[in-house]
Formats: sequence, C-alpha cells, structure tokens
Amino acid sequence: MDIAFLLFEGMTALDAVGPYEILQRVPGSNVRFVAKERGEQRAEDNSLGLVADYSFKDDVPAEVLLVPGGLATRQLVNDEETLEWIRQMDQKSEWTTAVCTGSLLLAATGLLKGREATTHWLEMEMLGELGAKPVEERVVHDGKFVTGAGVTAGIDMAITLVALMHDDFVAQALQLAVEYDPQPPFASGSPRTARRELVDLVREMAASRSLHSATRL
Amino acid sequence: MDIAFLLFEGMTALDAVGPYEILQRVPGSNVRFVAKERGEQRAEDNSLGLVADYSFKDDVPAEVLLVPGGLATRQLVNDEETLEWIRQMDQKSEWTTAVCTGSLLLAATGLLKGREATTHWLEMEMLGELGAKPVEERVVHDGKFVTGAGVTAGIDMAITLVALMHDDFVAQALQLAVEYDPQPPFASGSPRTARRELVDLVREMAASRSLHSATRL
Repeated sequence: MDIAFLLFEGMTALDAVGPYEILQRVPGSNVRFVAKERGEQRAEDNSLGLVADYSFKDDVPAEVLLVPGGLATRQLVNDEETLEWIRQMDQKSEWTTAVCTGSLLLAATGLLKGREATTHWLEMEMLGELGAKPVEERVVHDGKFVTGAGVTAGIDMAITLVALMHDDFVAQALQLAVEYDPQPPFASGSPRTARRELVDLVREMAASRSLHSATRL
Repeated sequence: MDIAFLLFEGMTALDAVGPYEILQRVPGSNVRFVAKERGEQRAEDNSLGLVADYSFKDDVPAEVLLVPGGLATRQLVNDEETLEWIRQMDQKSEWTTAVCTGSLLLAATGLLKGREATTHWLEMEMLGELGAKPVEERVVHDGKFVTGAGVTAGIDMAITLVALMHDDFVAQALQLAVEYDPQPPFASGSPRTARRELVDLVREMAASRSLHSATRL
C-alpha cells in the first residue's frame, strides 16, 4: 500500500511522525514523504529537519494521503500550488487524511465542503469557516476523509485508519508493537478536562502569536 | 534550557519526535539534534530522514539528553564511540533520558547500573542483562535518569520530565497545547491488556527478525 505524507517548511513534526510510525509498520506499506521541493523541510521551531525524497513534480502513488499541520498552514491555506497538489493526490487516493491544522489545509482545497471533520481545539471555528462541519471528536471519519484533532491525535487517527483499511487485528497488533498504552500524568489534554486558567493561557498565547499558532505555546 | 537529542541511522523516529514536540515548546528551550556525523539520518524503515545539525565533534550543551531507540540499537550497544558520547553528555546533563530501546543503549554505557529503568515490553529482560533494574512501568524516574517504555511512551515521559524540571502547570499547559487527550480505539497497547494471540504474534515477529526488532512488526 502506497502512503504519501505531505511535508512543508513550518510543519508540526509530530503531526506526520505519529501516524508514520503506525502506517510504516502496516505489512506491505510503502511510505513516501513529499514536499514542494525535494530535500530538507524544517519544522516550525526550526531545530529539526525532515527530509522529503519526492517533490510535487514526481508522480507519487498514494492509496493514502496524509496532510500534517503546523504554523505554516496560515500561509498555505492560500497557496494554490499546495492546494492543487492535495486535490490531485486526492483524485488517486482511497483515503485522504489530515492531522491538527492539516485539516484547515485540506478544507481550504474545498474537498471537505459539507463534510464532518476535526482539527486542533483552538481552530474549530476556522475549520467551519473553510467549509467543513467541525465535530469535537478526536478522530472523525466521513467517507474517504479521516481527520484527527491536535498534534498527538494523529496516533489515534492512524490506528483508526488501519482498522478501517484492514481489520481490528492488524490495528491492535500495531498498537501493541508501538506500546500505545497512554498514561498521561495529568488530565489536561483537552479544554473539556483542563483547568480553565490553562485553557485561557493557551488560547491567549496562541492569539498573541498568530491565528494558526494553536499548536505552539 | 539546552536539550540534546541523539539521532542515528536506524532509529525509531517517534521515540525522538514525540518528546521533541513537548520539549521544544518549553519556554526558553533550545533543542539540538546530534549524530555521529552531521546531516541526514534515516529511520529504521528507510523512508524518512531526520537531520542532525550537530555531530559528536561539536561541544553541544545539554541540560537534558534524550536517547531514542530503534533497530540499530542492536549494533550500537557495542559501539564504543556512541557509548562514550552518551557518557560525556551525561557528565554535563541535569537529566539523562531514554525512550524504548534507547534505554538499552543508555544501560550499555553503564550509567544505569543498579538503577530502575524501563524499555519496550519485549526488551525488559535485556535491560536487566545490561545492568539496570527493569521496572514494568510506562515512565520510570531514578535520580537524574528518566526512561520511557516502547515508542509512544516518549510523550508521557516528556510531560513527566517537564513537571519534574519545572512544575505541573507548565507540563499541563504543554499537554493541552498538543491536545494530548489520548483515545486509543482499542485496549491493546500493552501485553497486560492485549489479547494473548496478539502478544504471541508480536513476540514471534520480533524474534524472527532480530533481538532488538521489538519496535517493528
């Protein structure tokens, strides 16, 4: 199975690497990282580079497409070259997926028009403005589109996707292989469970930076 | 705060990128990726490259050191150059941490002798053979050493580490920023919860490949 990950300068690395670590283990999978230009793409804090072996010019096969998020989505929702590449990939994909603010990018293509989807909790309103129907769930599945909430939700999204594509047994075996038995030390991973002052703090810090800086403090 | 991540050919990318996505968000943090030689390091399935901006020859500052795991740890536990670099970094670190089979590498340096530590569930025995006291917990903290279980446990480890280094408030804010509100679709992330046939399958597939292939199906 051919799986294509979009990479770009200013991405959130974990949005891509979380699902990658599940999907690369699917027996028979063939993962390719693709960016506008081949080569290193720096993540949003600039300390880490991820390498794309393929560019938009390559005819990359994709039964699965994954679009990560990141600070750069603020610009990329207006970047027709990237949006058109996503539309072209979606024409050949069986599953088109996104994580975090990658859902905004996917919505900006028009492909999520009227479809249920999710994104980072700070960006739900923007997702609606871009034409999708925002659903406050960790993983949302509508037709061929599977979306995950903020950053770490990509892992849950990918395990759900494997179960949809194959069966529960393969998905469970992969979950065990990566020992995904999460035990967060606090119950503050969602605005529903976090203390109000934490929600206000993260919201303020995001607002003071930029509209799409939801994923950075 | 200076944070150094070891990278190497044949690593498990998520072992590093999970904690990175927490630690790079700590206000004032300065993350550096270091490898034997500067440049691209391919992850264990060879589809993804992560870039190290620094080499062992650079005098990289590190209040925190993080050692990821991966298939290549099988060789690296006998690689004196890598072991000596870890020992040198540990001399200046306040916290020395490892994820998954990175704990085997850390144990091979001798630094975990007699100390409690954890690793991937398939490698607990090996961790003991390398001189540590294996503890079947997701995150183990003994003195300055903090270790995480398999692959995805790096996220729990990093949030725990932030709470140890700073306070619960910062750790909780970061957890909310990356929306770490895990909702695995199955309860099969641990040999304690997974069906017996899944545990046997993952164990057999690991054994049939190599001793340290625990993290790949």
